[in-house]
Amino acid sequence: MKAGKGMDISIILGIIIGVGGIMIGYLLEGGAPAALVGLSAFLIIVLGTSGAVIASFSLKEFMGIPRILGDASAPANSPSAELAGQIVDLSDKARKEGLLSLDDMVEDIEDPLFRKGIRMVVDGVDPDEIEKLLETDISIYEFAKKEEVELFAAMGGYLPTMGIIGTVTGLVLVLGNLGSADTGHLGHAIATAFVATLYGISFANIFALPVSVKLKSKIKKEKLRMEMILTGVFAIHKGESPMLVKEKMLSYLEEDEQKLLEKGGGED
Amino acid sequence: MKAGKGMDISIILGIIIGVGGIMIGYLLEGGAPAALVGLSAFLIIVLGTSGAVIASFSLKEFMGIPRILGDASAPANSPSAELAGQIVDLSDKARKEGLLSLDDMVEDIEDPLFRKGIRMVVDGVDPDEIEKLLETDISIYEFAKKEEVELFAAMGGYLPTMGIIGTVTGLVLVLGNLGSADTGHLGHAIATAFVATLYGISFANIFALPVSVKLKSKIKKEKLRMEMILTGVFAIHKGESPMLVKEKMLSYLEEDEQKLLEKGGGED
Amino acid sequence: MKAGKGMDISIILGIIIGVGGIMIGYLLEGGAPAALVGLSAFLIIVLGTSGAVIASFSLKEFMGIPRILGDASAPANSPSAELAGQIVDLSDKARKEGLLSLDDMVEDIEDPLFRKGIRMVVDGVDPDEIEKLLETDISIYEFAKKEEVELFAAMGGYLPTMGIIGTVTGLVLVLGNLGSADTGHLGHAIATAFVATLYGISFANIFALPVSVKLKSKIKKEKLRMEMILTGVFAIHKGESPMLVKEKMLSYLEEDEQKLLEKGGGED
Amino acid sequence: MKAGKGMDISIILGIIIGVGGIMIGYLLEGGAPAALVGLSAFLIIVLGTSGAVIASFSLKEFMGIPRILGDASAPANSPSAELAGQIVDLSDKARKEGLLSLDDMVEDIEDPLFRKGIRMVVDGVDPDEIEKLLETDISIYEFAKKEEVELFAAMGGYLPTMGIIGTVTGLVLVLGNLGSADTGHLGHAIATAFVATLYGISFANIFALPVSVKLKSKIKKEKLRMEMILTGVFAIHKGESPMLVKEKMLSYLEEDEQKLLEKGGGED
Amino acid sequence: MKAGKGMDISIILGIIIGVGGIMIGYLLEGGAPAALVGLSAFLIIVLGTSGAVIASFSLKEFMGIPRILGDASAPANSPSAELAGQIVDLSDKARKEGLLSLDDMVEDIEDPLFRKGIRMVVDGVDPDEIEKLLETDISIYEFAKKEEVELFAAMGGYLPTMGIIGTVTGLVLVLGNLGSADTGHLGHAIATAFVATLYGISFANIFALPVSVKLKSKIKKEKLRMEMILTGVFAIHKGESPMLVKEKMLSYLEEDEQKLLEKGGGED
Repeated sequence: MKAGKGMDISIILGIIIGVGGIMIGYLLEGGAPAALVGLSAFLIIVLGTSGAVIASFSLKEFMGIPRILGDASAPANSPSAELAGQIVDLSDKARKEGLLSLDDMVEDIEDPLFRKGIRMVVDGVDPDEIEKLLETDISIYEFAKKEEVELFAAMGGYLPTMGIIGTVTGLVLVLGNLGSADTGHLGHAIATAFVATLYGISFANIFALPVSVKLKSKIKKEKLRMEMILTGVFAIHKGESPMLVKEKMLSYLEEDEQKLLEKGGGED
Repeated sequence: MKAGKGMDISIILGIIIGVGGIMIGYLLEGGAPAALVGLSAFLIIVLGTSGAVIASFSLKEFMGIPRILGDASAPANSPSAELAGQIVDLSDKARKEGLLSLDDMVEDIEDPLFRKGIRMVVDGVDPDEIEKLLETDISIYEFAKKEEVELFAAMGGYLPTMGIIGTVTGLVLVLGNLGSADTGHLGHAIATAFVATLYGISFANIFALPVSVKLKSKIKKEKLRMEMILTGVFAIHKGESPMLVKEKMLSYLEEDEQKLLEKGGGED
Repeated sequence: MKAGKGMDISIILGIIIGVGGIMIGYLLEGGAPAALVGLSAFLIIVLGTSGAVIASFSLKEFMGIPRILGDASAPANSPSAELAGQIVDLSDKARKEGLLSLDDMVEDIEDPLFRKGIRMVVDGVDPDEIEKLLETDISIYEFAKKEEVELFAAMGGYLPTMGIIGTVTGLVLVLGNLGSADTGHLGHAIATAFVATLYGISFANIFALPVSVKLKSKIKKEKLRMEMILTGVFAIHKGESPMLVKEKMLSYLEEDEQKLLEKGGGED
Repeated sequence: MKAGKGMDISIILGIIIGVGGIMIGYLLEGGAPAALVGLSAFLIIVLGTSGAVIASFSLKEFMGIPRILGDASAPANSPSAELAGQIVDLSDKARKEGLLSLDDMVEDIEDPLFRKGIRMVVDGVDPDEIEKLLETDISIYEFAKKEEVELFAAMGGYLPTMGIIGTVTGLVLVLGNLGSADTGHLGHAIATAFVATLYGISFANIFALPVSVKLKSKIKKEKLRMEMILTGVFAIHKGESPMLVKEKMLSYLEEDEQKLLEKGGGED
Repeated sequence: MKAGKGMDISIILGIIIGVGGIMIGYLLEGGAPAALVGLSAFLIIVLGTSGAVIASFSLKEFMGIPRILGDASAPANSPSAELAGQIVDLSDKARKEGLLSLDDMVEDIEDPLFRKGIRMVVDGVDPDEIEKLLETDISIYEFAKKEEVELFAAMGGYLPTMGIIGTVTGLVLVLGNLGSADTGHLGHAIATAFVATLYGISFANIFALPVSVKLKSKIKKEKLRMEMILTGVFAIHKGESPMLVKEKMLSYLEEDEQKLLEKGGGED
């Protein structure tokens, strides 16, 4: 999460709307909120799923969940007009004053991948080697991020089954006492058993799976940005005309960012 | 949706037939329509799913749903005899009068990808660069469109589970009052709980999933059109014979469009 | 479906065996056939699924279902000894008398893709262009056929859920009258509700999904035939020895067709 | 199944353990074996699934099921030290005495793909053509084998749904007589209905799906063997040193086969 | 599992937390632990699943499960600073003293793939051949490991269905005695039947599926390490500058390992 870039509140907003909608519907029917509260169901769902996630990945990765949620709530690192403009500017400078003229600008580049690429261009590293190195960086980054997606997808798969486990243990309990129970007590006990199913499905569909989808979508945008950087680094290395570079950058941008680049950026 | 091209009413038609068929079957059995109306079920399904979709994507993408539905109801941008004819005509002109002769025709080209390709051909951009640029455009377009497909696919996945959530909360309600209820009232309450399942499955299978399938099928047709344009741009650049270009274009067209091109089009 | 080639009756045969087996099992238990007949269930399943399919694809594609079923009942266009022999014969002639000698044989070639390929070879089109053109033809053909597979796969997905919708609406009906009903009537009504599930699952598993699997398997065989043609066209163009061409063709044939080619075919 | 190579009894052993385990558990609870026998359930499951499989594939492929089961029970054609040693020996001979010296050894090669490859090497066929031919052979082989995997996977998908169909028809029967039945008879009838579900799930999970997994795993091993042959044929053609060839062959072998090759094989 | 590298206890820890959480939730509700114990359910689940796994793979692979579990509990063979440092050191030495100078260091290399690669480099094997050989090694390794992943994934698929089989046989038992049973006994018997479902889902979600996910994640890390070695071997062969080699190695390392390499390793 970078300072000054605001925050992507959609996960929190989505959870509020989702849970709120379910609660409103339930209350409208005359339901008592207390009937949806179940400590044992909660423990079974949360501890059971935690155990399954730890066994699937590791304690360290499990402990990283808050950090991943922070990342998921940060705005995506999409291809931006700002970065595109910087690439066009550098290509202009490199063409006019030579690749070595970029040397003192390298440290000002904020994006680490772009900085690394330009530094290697300035150092005269073979372009094929640069390509391999940057592509390795991209695929390693993708590898690590996909693990996070899979963690939440796995969580979204374990949660409903933990809900069923909670409900079945609850039903085992109810059925064992079937002979001695009156109908009212019985109904109440079955209702309690169902709360576990409710938790399992809700947590999966309003929390774990949406986070997994969100992370997957972010990776795609960040990969696009990285491909934009790769394209830019090679265009700068080849000394392409800033106009062509700009054209290339425009391909990667969404409509509003395209306008920003058209207005502000680069070539003059 | 382009004016003058009519509209693809299949989504609306399909929903009418689907919902109509279910209602007719229900009424034939002597069911009362009112029993299928449930405000709380509706709220749980719609708000719950909206929350899950917002958390999975973003408020902005969620707000774009009406626009996506508009796009889904517009006729697909398939490979057309009209565009194929235009490509053949341009290849003919380019061969007879040279590539520069296309300069004053560029602005009349309606399709933005084709216009961009021909402009670059006229500007003398290196064909490898043109290929990379157009392919980037295509893959970025595909990327954005696939997000839309996934949004509706995710919606189609969340809807039935929200239906189950609605039914389970309803059953929790019923079961909590099991002791004091008479059978008639009980049956009515369970019926109400089932309405949520009905909404969840119906909305998923008659709305969200069909829209997702439709959008996916449209992307494929539009990608085909883009590949036709790419093929055309390179054929024009290479100065291929209009006859060969026409043969290539025919490959991309469906039978009725093939006949249109044979009759009207291009080379003379 | 080509005349003189018989018909692939496996779909009809499979449906008869499948439905027959279910009926026999049901009758053996003493079931009354009338209990499995339900007009409203039928309407919900058929109209609901039709609506979902129309919304997913289009009215035009929905109307094409009888034609697709006709295609599915025609024998697959697999690689055949007949076609392989023709390819070997042409390679022999081309090698002895030159490529132009094939000119007057082009129109006798029945297979449209093979005819197109040989015509281009005779016309002296560049082999790379021939390859691209034929490959475009193959991929467009595959694209169209895959839409048909997906239509039946989607149908097979919608059918069981329509069955559940029919059953749930039926249960809503039953439950709404729970207070006033005697057990016998109640059982009958629930049985009727279950008929919808029965229809949904049966139609999906004995009709829609098998047709989808069948179409997918046919595409693979037809694609193999097209690859055989491609290999043949290039071998003819390169003037390879008929013996090598025959060896190549044998790779594509099943055992019984291999024997046919060994006996009858081509090179002498 | 090749004589002298024993048999892979794992399918039969697995079925015995699986079915035996279920029966022991059932008997331990005091269940009567007769209660699990149901002719009508059996007919519905077996005929219904047979029908669906015939409709999905063809009567011919359905009739081939016993042959496929025989193949599945034969030991996999994995990369073997024996074949590897033969390849190393041939590479040694080819290097010392020339490619033509292999001529009189070709007919002694048992593996048809290896024999075909060496014959073409001896005949002086262009290595690129050999590669294409052998790769076509491999992919056609894979294509045919994958159909068999899909047949059993489809069967494993149809079986449980046929079980549900059997149970639902049974319940329809029960519910139709709900008014006139005593509880004991009712329970018995429902139990009978459940037997269909039991058959469907059991046959799928202890027979059809395991066979499908087994066949898929066999294809992978056989493909590995074919790749080993391809590598060997090209190494022989290039006249590589037997030591390098042996190193290459070792890569394809499992640990125990590696030891066999180290001890016995090839180069001396 | 290598000595001195500790152990990855996450699987055991996860199972303890998962099972513990479910038990705590159950006990909190007042459940008796004895009600969750069922010998017949256990036999059905364990023997049924074992049978299905043996039929799917083989007795030998089934017997290998303890070894696979040992591997899964060993720390992953990820790209490490230690190996990266060794690669940088060797590249430094090779550049200064020539490739042959590595000869007496080969036997000290612990990693078998790296050792094999360097030995071939020293032996002067053609780099293309080295690449093919090492890539074959990697893909064979991956092939064997993926079989293990699939074994546990298949187990995770069979377990819940065996649970359903156990429950259905239990219900058949209960229903067969429905007439003569009192409610208390009935409830108890149904509860016992549900225990099988509980076992099936729990074993699948707290044991089999997590192990499968864990193994899959380990393969990815080990493949990364192997790719790092490949990159290193080729860099050493080409005599690249240790600085570039180090830069390449850094790409493969996680943050903490990167720091280790920066501090300790290689070039000086």
